[in-house]
Amino acid sequence: MTVLDTPAVAVRGVDTETYVTLDQRFPARWSPRAMNGEALTTMEVDTLLEAARWAPSCFNAQPWRFAYTIQGDDDWSRFFDALIEANQTWARNAGALIAVSARIRFEHNDNPAATAGFDAGAAWMSMALQAQHMGLVTHGMYGFDQDKARSALQLPEVYELCAIIAVGHAGEKDDLPETYREREVPSDRKPLDEIRFHGSFADLPENG
Amino acid sequence: MTVLDTPAVAVRGVDTETYVTLDQRFPARWSPRAMNGEALTTMEVDTLLEAARWAPSCFNAQPWRFAYTIQGDDDWSRFFDALIEANQTWARNAGALIAVSARIRFEHNDNPAATAGFDAGAAWMSMALQAQHMGLVTHGMYGFDQDKARSALQLPEVYELCAIIAVGHAGEKDDLPETYREREVPSDRKPLDEIRFHGSFADLPENG
Repeated sequence: MTVLDTPAVAVRGVDTETYVTLDQRFPARWSPRAMNGEALTTMEVDTLLEAARWAPSCFNAQPWRFAYTIQGDDDWSRFFDALIEANQTWARNAGALIAVSARIRFEHNDNPAATAGFDAGAAWMSMALQAQHMGLVTHGMYGFDQDKARSALQLPEVYELCAIIAVGHAGEKDDLPETYREREVPSDRKPLDEIRFHGSFADLPENG
Repeated sequence: MTVLDTPAVAVRGVDTETYVTLDQRFPARWSPRAMNGEALTTMEVDTLLEAARWAPSCFNAQPWRFAYTIQGDDDWSRFFDALIEANQTWARNAGALIAVSARIRFEHNDNPAATAGFDAGAAWMSMALQAQHMGLVTHGMYGFDQDKARSALQLPEVYELCAIIAVGHAGEKDDLPETYREREVPSDRKPLDEIRFHGSFADLPENG
């Protein structure tokens, strides 16, 4: 299979020059909604969070905290009910829901931790790539009721709730609600020229 | 080499059960400061950002924008001078410096983008893992003067400056300033039991 034949290049438009040394797992990963409802095992969840645990963070403060529920357990509805209806229509078939939070003050001095969300995002990416490594799919959601979720999950004030991640085994596109079927494809990205600048951000439009 | 013999388990204390299915690149990656001063090529920078480009983001808004300078080019001092002195002592040997910014309002409706930093963190993790894939090392820094860096890099108001990443070829620990030599080892992480909770965050202490 030549570089140009690869699904990643064909489907996701990776520049063929960079593609030569690009780890193909990056363009190959995407965020499907079709999951088959099979519960994850506790060990699978632990392994996803083990990957997340090794992410880098400012002062190695590790601001990330995770709360999870597994399909069919007693805690499921506490997470599920906080999702907006649109997400409930497909996330009902996730194998687990994992809430990602970030401590917005440093534990060592209680000062604001400006990079808490940024660092938690690094942990989430590790989790997503580990899921891909295990043949699982992930779809991050911010579509939930913040107050409802914070209170249902009993998240202390000093943490922000960054996302709720649906993780599961791939399902059938045709089992998705009609509105999501045609959207069940890898999404594209802005070309490199629109996000990468040499020397400064001067070429960004005033309003970005 | 048995699981227990692996550097990751030995050095970084990965749980041996999860380790069986854990992608070993996660515990193997760390953030060295020792770099040899060799300039990255433009193609190497492009490949790092190509990996970052495929990260997931809320509404696929892709809030990340990157500005870079390569060791020895005319823009280097603009980035380097914004770093705090402690970081300058070792980052002077980076092969490139990459500033990561995030658009804090959505382009499509100008509403606040709550996940901008979180999403940019996911892009940064992809960059760090792609660098590992290429045999390069990365060290993220928040140790810089925000105002100085924003103005030197001409970052528009609608973006936050999340981090400046030092990327380079591994160098000699002994060439580091003395204060950093003994710190030039993979840092540890909190045990999984302190960051992972089943059902809710109820077991987090009030003050996290």
